[in-house]
Amino acid sequence: MVIDLNSDLGEGFGAWSMGDDAALLGIVTSANIACGFHAGDPAIMRRTCDLAVAHGVRIGAHISYRDLAGFGRRELATAPEELTAESLYQIGALDSIARAAGDRVRYVKPHGALYHSAARDESVAAALVAALAGHGDLSLLGPADSALATAAAAAGIPFHAEGFADRGYTPEATLLPRGADGAVLTAEAALRQAVSIAVAGRTVTAAGHEVRVDVRSLCVHGDSPDAVRMARTIREALLDQGVELRSFV
Amino acid sequence: MVIDLNSDLGEGFGAWSMGDDAALLGIVTSANIACGFHAGDPAIMRRTCDLAVAHGVRIGAHISYRDLAGFGRRELATAPEELTAESLYQIGALDSIARAAGDRVRYVKPHGALYHSAARDESVAAALVAALAGHGDLSLLGPADSALATAAAAAGIPFHAEGFADRGYTPEATLLPRGADGAVLTAEAALRQAVSIAVAGRTVTAAGHEVRVDVRSLCVHGDSPDAVRMARTIREALLDQGVELRSFV
Amino acid sequence: MVIDLNSDLGEGFGAWSMGDDAALLGIVTSANIACGFHAGDPAIMRRTCDLAVAHGVRIGAHISYRDLAGFGRRELATAPEELTAESLYQIGALDSIARAAGDRVRYVKPHGALYHSAARDESVAAALVAALAGHGDLSLLGPADSALATAAAAAGIPFHAEGFADRGYTPEATLLPRGADGAVLTAEAALRQAVSIAVAGRTVTAAGHEVRVDVRSLCVHGDSPDAVRMARTIREALLDQGVELRSFV
Amino acid sequence: MVIDLNSDLGEGFGAWSMGDDAALLGIVTSANIACGFHAGDPAIMRRTCDLAVAHGVRIGAHISYRDLAGFGRRELATAPEELTAESLYQIGALDSIARAAGDRVRYVKPHGALYHSAARDESVAAALVAALAGHGDLSLLGPADSALATAAAAAGIPFHAEGFADRGYTPEATLLPRGADGAVLTAEAALRQAVSIAVAGRTVTAAGHEVRVDVRSLCVHGDSPDAVRMARTIREALLDQGVELRSFV
Repeated sequence: MVIDLNSDLGEGFGAWSMGDDAALLGIVTSANIACGFHAGDPAIMRRTCDLAVAHGVRIGAHISYRDLAGFGRRELATAPEELTAESLYQIGALDSIARAAGDRVRYVKPHGALYHSAARDESVAAALVAALAGHGDLSLLGPADSALATAAAAAGIPFHAEGFADRGYTPEATLLPRGADGAVLTAEAALRQAVSIAVAGRTVTAAGHEVRVDVRSLCVHGDSPDAVRMARTIREALLDQGVELRSFV
Repeated sequence: MVIDLNSDLGEGFGAWSMGDDAALLGIVTSANIACGFHAGDPAIMRRTCDLAVAHGVRIGAHISYRDLAGFGRRELATAPEELTAESLYQIGALDSIARAAGDRVRYVKPHGALYHSAARDESVAAALVAALAGHGDLSLLGPADSALATAAAAAGIPFHAEGFADRGYTPEATLLPRGADGAVLTAEAALRQAVSIAVAGRTVTAAGHEVRVDVRSLCVHGDSPDAVRMARTIREALLDQGVELRSFV
Repeated sequence: MVIDLNSDLGEGFGAWSMGDDAALLGIVTSANIACGFHAGDPAIMRRTCDLAVAHGVRIGAHISYRDLAGFGRRELATAPEELTAESLYQIGALDSIARAAGDRVRYVKPHGALYHSAARDESVAAALVAALAGHGDLSLLGPADSALATAAAAAGIPFHAEGFADRGYTPEATLLPRGADGAVLTAEAALRQAVSIAVAGRTVTAAGHEVRVDVRSLCVHGDSPDAVRMARTIREALLDQGVELRSFV
Repeated sequence: MVIDLNSDLGEGFGAWSMGDDAALLGIVTSANIACGFHAGDPAIMRRTCDLAVAHGVRIGAHISYRDLAGFGRRELATAPEELTAESLYQIGALDSIARAAGDRVRYVKPHGALYHSAARDESVAAALVAALAGHGDLSLLGPADSALATAAAAAGIPFHAEGFADRGYTPEATLLPRGADGAVLTAEAALRQAVSIAVAGRTVTAAGHEVRVDVRSLCVHGDSPDAVRMARTIREALLDQGVELRSFV
């Protein structure tokens, strides 16, 4: 009974802030840190790395399409070799800052539109995996049963699947699309699902079917005071159940 | 009689190109590669690194203030700790790409307005040196007798001075300011100065005074066909005089 | 007894928000709307214009140096003709959006570092005034007794001075520099100063001297719930005193 | 026998240049000027407008998705109301600069990926047309028989179709896709096609079929010395045939 809690952090830019990074870094075990392509800038990356190191939280590169104006949420047709170069750029930029802060980048998680295209599109997945192979000594965090998981396996790159406490699952263990009935769980149901995934590797669908959710990490959010409260409650419930919270790297 | 030839490369951006990188990489021994802050993007950085590796040219990070619209030529009041983070960001981004290309970043040279402020301003120089110390295993290329040279020495970071073939020197071995009479040499005088600096460590001022120019590298330009021709002529003249062309790293 | 209340609005960018624009637009009579160079993007500009039109608030272009990463707070050496072109660009961009929303840009106020350099530097002031002359039919809002005021007068461009409720004044009617003792007033003192400026055209310095503050507008802030509350309190106090709140354009 | 020659101009950015604007402005009758989203910056826009005014060339806004790194060639999922706001922003920015230069924006032509999506996608076409309606007094230049042409007609916005001298046509009067056999014509065939379109409103396909090409404008390129030469040759051939060269606005 070991699980990781990960969260998207360092998502401010210049004068703008987003989320409560300081609070989250007292809760999670892995920090997906924005690298300047959808959010984040060098100064924010440094502050976030310093805090992560102080809390013993693992540092991951939260890489994105180059789209600050769209927060990386818009798909952007990018040639595979360019995507590989952009991934290396972001990973290296964060790694150098993380090393100056006393640690290093341990893993990579794609963000937003890149998360979805890497899950679905083999050429995107291969482009990201090529970047990890080029940099060396990194693992991937992402969606289970995805093109990205397959590409990582083929290249011998450690892949760790993540689940979601607050999202409803289908009988096939995929997420219900946002907007669908039951796509977003209540706080109570999310708490129950987090514990069930961590302790038993399964959850229950809206229709009452048991479904296997075999993940090494749970993603929690920090974009509102409620979200932070929820993340903290999940952390405490997991510890109460004897689950060990530990990063996958 | 050993000298390095360095040049600013990879200074295109997206659809725009600048200079003849392929030609220059057959001439120089060290390549100052733009890191995306004044020019360059990940795809261009990758292509430039690939070419540098193929030619056995050393890779340096040509770091800049964050000013793509101004090509890094405008001074930009940046807090020292932010400048350190921005430097680490650029160095790390290029290093990761260089490693995927089969080598690594060996040295750092500040660009444009940052070159000038690092030469003059102790706090800027210290901010850059802090980045090199944070990243580790790098040397600096820059102006002799500068705040940057002093800060590097204090931090134990190897510093290498560069000279210019085509710029006139004062009796104090500093460059004549652009616009001053004799600030830019003719092709013939530049060739003579390059050989004299490499062979004898000195040149002659406009007024005919001998002046000591003790540098390990000469900067050559590639922004026009004439510039490339001049760089090639300098290379050949140096080799004819028995000067060994070799990077400082 | 007529005064304008102005505030900096539309200062989000993409996924990031800043300040409570909706609340402020129920309080002020003039809105300085960011034009994308230090903050703001076309969608935010449109939403802010729509709200301003709905509230009958005058629209001004809050123009800036091109520095999104630094929120326009860093001086950036820009050639005068480039500054004129950048000003026209920002004014025109907002004007077109404002017209689609049912009004137009009525005035211009420089932001951040540009505010300060236009107050002090004749060539910067002239570059801004040239943009207003090129666009036509605009007035300027800015600091009294400044290079900008002088340049506007010389060019026949209406200039309106603004004062600050919450900032301490010197006996010479300039602002105490931030950091100086008494530079930022308490809520109570700010309220008193706002009323005194609006009703009597004067305030009292920290040392108790009366000083004339002859301004047509007061700048209020909205970057925190406290700031919004203060702005609303000032508005109500002014109305209680029989001051008419009306824009200068 | 009247036709317009249009070309994409002002496509440099900062220190980077592209194409020979000065030469093209002596050839064309309408200038599609980049507005900063795929290329162009305020200073370049001003210089290009000044040259256009000096040559009596009509000024059009060459609007794009916001993608400087991709030169506007990559489709970018943008919400329709955001696309309208981005279009207004670009049109207004150029209009203000054009007015300072002594003329104004007369028409709009979408660039790159936006050209293609506006040709095909009704919601994109409608978003652009909404911007033109919001700004007022503009016409559209674009592909014949497109979603954009339809949307313009529905909104009562004048639409002018453009043809291409150097691209092969299908029997349905659409362009052969790049890469297809005969997609790009030789210089000689391009010249013949330009004259045939201007004089007779038709051309001949690769297979020898006559096809009607009913356009008010021909697009010519200036991105290489050869392209400029070709554009000049086309201009002269048209004048020799008694064709009047005149913008559609």
